[in-house]
Amino acid sequence: MKFTPTDRTTSLRNPGKLLYDKDIAYRILDEAYVCHVGYIANGVPRVLPTAHVRVGDVLYLHGSTGSRALLNARDGGVDVCVEVTLLDGLVYSRSWFHHSVNYRCVIVHGRAEPVQDEREKWRALEMLVDTYGTGRSRDSREPTDKELAQTGVLALPLTEVSVKTRQGPPNEDPADVDLAYWAGEVPLTTVVGAAIPDEGVSVPTPSYTRAKT
Amino acid sequence: MKFTPTDRTTSLRNPGKLLYDKDIAYRILDEAYVCHVGYIANGVPRVLPTAHVRVGDVLYLHGSTGSRALLNARDGGVDVCVEVTLLDGLVYSRSWFHHSVNYRCVIVHGRAEPVQDEREKWRALEMLVDTYGTGRSRDSREPTDKELAQTGVLALPLTEVSVKTRQGPPNEDPADVDLAYWAGEVPLTTVVGAAIPDEGVSVPTPSYTRAKT
Repeated sequence: MKFTPTDRTTSLRNPGKLLYDKDIAYRILDEAYVCHVGYIANGVPRVLPTAHVRVGDVLYLHGSTGSRALLNARDGGVDVCVEVTLLDGLVYSRSWFHHSVNYRCVIVHGRAEPVQDEREKWRALEMLVDTYGTGRSRDSREPTDKELAQTGVLALPLTEVSVKTRQGPPNEDPADVDLAYWAGEVPLTTVVGAAIPDEGVSVPTPSYTRAKT
Repeated sequence: MKFTPTDRTTSLRNPGKLLYDKDIAYRILDEAYVCHVGYIANGVPRVLPTAHVRVGDVLYLHGSTGSRALLNARDGGVDVCVEVTLLDGLVYSRSWFHHSVNYRCVIVHGRAEPVQDEREKWRALEMLVDTYGTGRSRDSREPTDKELAQTGVLALPLTEVSVKTRQGPPNEDPADVDLAYWAGEVPLTTVVGAAIPDEGVSVPTPSYTRAKT
């Protein structure tokens, strides 16, 4: 399955470098813990990091009901650009010019609307908690009515989506390959450390946390 | 040294949670490999990941001269919001509501202008290459005039800046602390892997790459 490119999801410079594969986009969205939400407030751009979860073809964004993005969204939604980038490594070229990074990036454009339906909101929050580990939502206390009222969830349809990735060695100019400089890739990985239980916790660390033991 | 808060760098919701310490902000900007640049194009928000380097009180953003952000900036600059977030861990609470992440985030607002001065541009590119490892700019080929013409650098003054961080255990409701759910922190760290030399490279991997050997 592919997304249909639009003006906003087409590159001016390198149209051939963008991908529109749903599978690739969804794998990147699902792997990332944080997304970067761009929106306009009082005529100027703003970017906020927030937690997200994909459920089918919808991206849910978490927010407090007092935050600017959600206040803007109260009346029928807010135009957003959501960006997720996973950094995979540094790319050392023999030339300054071709230094680069290896990465996987998804950009989503669209109108994010506050989730009004209480069941949809509950389900989105449940899935958000499960991004901390499969089953975590059943292994922690459900929200009270007051907590629910303080939590906002925006829904963004995943229709206008592009993917850009870079992997592999540097793109060297043929004239540079004999220069005696080191060149190559240095991978960067996010690793999960050893869990730090909160004071008073007596149950063992659940395996869904993927924490080192 | 502290930044002076402005409307844009003051939180509606939790004003006390934002910091304005230059030292803290600069350490976060310097540690991150990628920043997220928000800007407005044709009336809609856009966010792009890009490389950055801080030189004194200026944040330089890297771009191709054919990219939308830089095209927008040609005539006197472009309003941007630059966000950098370092993710330090997942925070498991006994309640859905208090699940959180530990992070360090910097937000910069201002007008980014294309660097016209050739010496300033050279210096910014040199410092950008040195973010790959101290001294890397002297250990790789300098740009040609053609490469320089293809590379755009935007300068953003670091004056309107805020910092938000979260560290430590979950903020539990007192009523929840005796619930028999696991709670605590699971640290996330970015680690540098083993270098993958490019084809034909005969010199040893430089230590400035911080690659594992």
